[in-house]
Amino acid sequence: MNPLIEYPRKAGTPVSFRPFSPAVKVGDLIFVSGQASVDLQGNIVTDTFEGEFRRSMENLKKVVEDSGSDMKHVVQTRNYIRDPENVVRFNELYKEYFSAPYPSRTTITQCLKGLHYEVECIAVVKR
Amino acid sequence: MNPLIEYPRKAGTPVSFRPFSPAVKVGDLIFVSGQASVDLQGNIVTDTFEGEFRRSMENLKKVVEDSGSDMKHVVQTRNYIRDPENVVRFNELYKEYFSAPYPSRTTITQCLKGLHYEVECIAVVKR
Amino acid sequence: MNPLIEYPRKAGTPVSFRPFSPAVKVGDLIFVSGQASVDLQGNIVTDTFEGEFRRSMENLKKVVEDSGSDMKHVVQTRNYIRDPENVVRFNELYKEYFSAPYPSRTTITQCLKGLHYEVECIAVVKR
Repeated sequence: MNPLIEYPRKAGTPVSFRPFSPAVKVGDLIFVSGQASVDLQGNIVTDTFEGEFRRSMENLKKVVEDSGSDMKHVVQTRNYIRDPENVVRFNELYKEYFSAPYPSRTTITQCLKGLHYEVECIAVVKR
Repeated sequence: MNPLIEYPRKAGTPVSFRPFSPAVKVGDLIFVSGQASVDLQGNIVTDTFEGEFRRSMENLKKVVEDSGSDMKHVVQTRNYIRDPENVVRFNELYKEYFSAPYPSRTTITQCLKGLHYEVECIAVVKR
Repeated sequence: MNPLIEYPRKAGTPVSFRPFSPAVKVGDLIFVSGQASVDLQGNIVTDTFEGEFRRSMENLKKVVEDSGSDMKHVVQTRNYIRDPENVVRFNELYKEYFSAPYPSRTTITQCLKGLHYEVECIAVVKR
């Protein structure tokens, strides 16, 4: 294997029974899998938009931190919102998890079923 | 902060009142936020598909250039098209903004509401 | 051009008449375009979900290998599935192409028309 590749994970990192790693590190970059409202074994927890958003972000935060980074070192997020009417609320809630200078970001809608929200990111290791 | 991370921006760079940076630079890579048909403050400008496409691409070009790169150094684009019937026209218009050797690319549809088009990219700094 | 950028391609690499490169390499990272069920010239081959999935993955594998990498060095995949009812089958089939430790991954649905499946990835060069 290319020695740059690592698979960071700690006891308690949100994992999934599905075939993906929570994060893969390549040098200073950390590619984090799409995080949703799931428990620590990957079982879906349906909730309100806000409830699912918060659970997704807490999972993202945990994966990012367990990979040697933190939310201030997230450089890009991609956000998937099922119902377009939740975009305004999304922008409000988002500011509870990130602060300026913000990551770059993309947001698209109507591409989820059975879940309100999913978020993936690229982070950079702390130095 | 990891000293690799920078938040490039100039006077006139398209920004948004929403919580994201136009671009974040990590070493030689520039992660550019999804660009759409918005004015320089981030207000949506609805238009025909072609009109929205051009405004999105002009915004992308400005963010890329204000980050120390140019359209020839864009290595990947992700394209979000609301109406699948515009994909053929999209491929024609796209060639006005990029030339061979082209960036890698992904195009998906039906994941926007209220906008015809959105585009994000990864670029590399000029050297 | 930034000397880090390369456009890997061999005789037989799946290309497209559309304006994108199969992959662009930046240092150790390889950004691979969205691969679908197409023939070696980019013409769409409609099939069952499984048939389209396998053709997409074979195309991805060929592009990845022709870029100086292999499926074990894929660090992130993004998966686009038209019909949500195929997600379970997708997870089964996926394990025929990737093995633990798996790439990071995102999966979204309902954002394709006329195709069952599309997959893009980031890979790292072999060393």
